[in-house]
Parts: sequence; C-alpha cells; structure tokens
Amino acid sequence: MPQGQVTSVPDDGLTTRQRRAQPLLVVHTGDGKGKSTAAFGMALRAWTACWPIGVFQFTKSPKWKSGEEAALKSLAAVHESTGQGGPVTWHKMGEGWSWLRTQPADHERAARAGWDQVKLDLAAARYRLIILDEFTYPVSNGTLDVAEILATLASRPGTQHVVITGRRAHPDLVAAADLVTEMTKIRHPMDAGRKGQAGIEW
Amino acid sequence: MPQGQVTSVPDDGLTTRQRRAQPLLVVHTGDGKGKSTAAFGMALRAWTACWPIGVFQFTKSPKWKSGEEAALKSLAAVHESTGQGGPVTWHKMGEGWSWLRTQPADHERAARAGWDQVKLDLAAARYRLIILDEFTYPVSNGTLDVAEILATLASRPGTQHVVITGRRAHPDLVAAADLVTEMTKIRHPMDAGRKGQAGIEW
Repeated sequence: MPQGQVTSVPDDGLTTRQRRAQPLLVVHTGDGKGKSTAAFGMALRAWTACWPIGVFQFTKSPKWKSGEEAALKSLAAVHESTGQGGPVTWHKMGEGWSWLRTQPADHERAARAGWDQVKLDLAAARYRLIILDEFTYPVSNGTLDVAEILATLASRPGTQHVVITGRRAHPDLVAAADLVTEMTKIRHPMDAGRKGQAGIEW
Repeated sequence: MPQGQVTSVPDDGLTTRQRRAQPLLVVHTGDGKGKSTAAFGMALRAWTACWPIGVFQFTKSPKWKSGEEAALKSLAAVHESTGQGGPVTWHKMGEGWSWLRTQPADHERAARAGWDQVKLDLAAARYRLIILDEFTYPVSNGTLDVAEILATLASRPGTQHVVITGRRAHPDLVAAADLVTEMTKIRHPMDAGRKGQAGIEW
C-alpha cells in the first residue's frame, strides 16, 4: 500500500523520494503458482505508469502461448495507437529470439544469447521494467554465471526494475534481490488429478 | 504448464475434459507480495480467453487506484471497441459500490452489501472469472459468515472460477479451495527503509 510504514530508516543520506526511486531487483520463486502471473500483473502497473516494458521469456517450449502475452500485446497496441500506457516488447527463447537470424543450436547457447541481449538493453536503459521469465533455471544450472549477472545488475544505469521468476532461485540471486517472494503451494488441482485448463493455466 | 502431469487420476467417473472444465476456487494468501497482482495476472489470461471478468475489491480506502485497474479497464475498452478479449467489470467498496445509490454506513455493512451482489452475480453466472480482492478480511473477522460463503460457492452454477485474495485466509476457506498459494515474504524493500513507489506498489 502507498501509505505502508517502513520498519527502519536507513542512514544512507538519501531522501525518501530518492530512496523510492531506487531500481528494484525482484525475485518470484518457490514451487507454487503465481510467479510469472504476478510478474505480468506488475507489468499492468508499469504499463499504466507509461513505462517501457521488456519481457524475455527463457522458456524452452516453442508451443507456449500465454494469455498474458496476448493481453499485454493488446495493451502495447493501445499504446501505439493512442499513446496511452507504455510500450511492451516481448521476446521468447522457445520460438527463437526475435533479434537473431540464426538461432543457437541448443538451449544453453540460446539462454546465453538471451542474456547477452538483456545486458545490451540494460546498458542502454531501454526499459523501465524488465521481466526475465523463468530465468532462474539457466542461472541455477550454471549455463549463466551468477557472479557476472549480479555484477551486471548492480551496475545497471538509471531506474530499471528487474523481475526474475522461476523455481529454485540461486541463493546469491536471492541474497542480492531487494524483494523476494516465495510462492508456496498449499494445494493444487493437479493433486486431485485435474489437468490444466485454458484461461487458468495458460 | 499445459502438459503438466497429474499425480493421480481420481475415480470420479469424469473424463479429463470434464475434469479440466471444473470451476476452480483459488486462494492467494500469506504475508508476501503478489496476491492481488497474481490475481490480476490471471485476469489477463481470462481476458485473452474472452471470458467475462468481474472484480470486487473489498478494500476500505477510497483513494486506492491501482495500475492494474487502469490497464484492465483499457483491455475492457479494447473488448468494447473491437470485440477482442473479454469484458471487464470493476467494483470497489472503498469508493462506494457502483450499483448502490445509498452507500452503507460502515465497512461491515459495505462488505455485506458487496457479498450480496456477488451472490446475485454467481447465481446468474454473470462472469467466468470473478476476483474477490482482499475478501479474506471480512471473512476472517466474522463480518461475513464463512459457512454461508462456502455453501454459496459450492452451489454456484456453470464454470465460474473464483479467486480470493488477502492475508490470513480463514482455515475453512483454505480447506474448501481447489488451489491455494501462499505468498511468503523473503525480503521486502520496506525492511530496508524504502517506501513504496508508483508503478511497483500501485
């Protein structure tokens, strides 16, 4: 809530306004649902705030088409036609990164190519909200170097909020983040033998 | 994921298709962030699936204006002008329920008036996704009768998915839900003395 009370005021020489405007590194992890969904919900807020939004989905499947993608692309179209809200750029590893003519031969190289572009976009401060969906996996499995990622994030210019989603977030990533939420599964329909359904699961 | 494996197949005489189409009661609870945000992320999927969406916010403050609200209303306008996606109806207790000429005198009566309308809309199967945002509070504090709520939800007709958000969900509500996710705070910027910022917190 906007009127939330802070539990302590740091001795960092910053005003509340300066402290508010600090770029956040946010991690949504855990085995429960809602990690990506909450990230895309944050994109709704960012869109309303007229921020440029960049989404990089590090998912492997080319089939994956989410309802969030279609809806956020509709909001991007609203921005393009009326100027309302912010622009949305959407990249998916599974269908091949849109900026590459020749796609990497395997998932590991594809993940590295994705991160290389994220680094360029961070250096250029191209977005104000950047969602790295399912990015925890190439970090946790060692495809990407967590120390290099943290150094890159720590030195990003301007006010770029970065949201990383996925299970099993690397402990160093968790330690470096400003905001970490763990989505814990209390009960899931698949436990009762139901499969996912359109509109709910994708 | 659409290809998720179920852990057991129930002996309920239903086909997978029938089981898939079952209406879900979803609860997002816990002290962490992302409860409402993930619910509104689900609304993105529902919008893409062309489902009618109803949002009832049981928040007390009349000032509360979320970025999700503005963005989802933009999607509602896209639906109205192009037929794309689904319609979105948004009701907020804090500004006074839109269908009432005379507003209830206190929050308890306002919460009851909200639930009375939800009951009518459920009976009429008016929406396919209905979000009861911050609804756990009037349930937990006894303003609303949890047994009556569960009986109403259990007998709702058609395929109406209901998502309830808020801290301290009543144990009976958790027990009755198909899908419960607890958002657990691992780290929050307010711990470091930062206050909320536009685009992130609202």
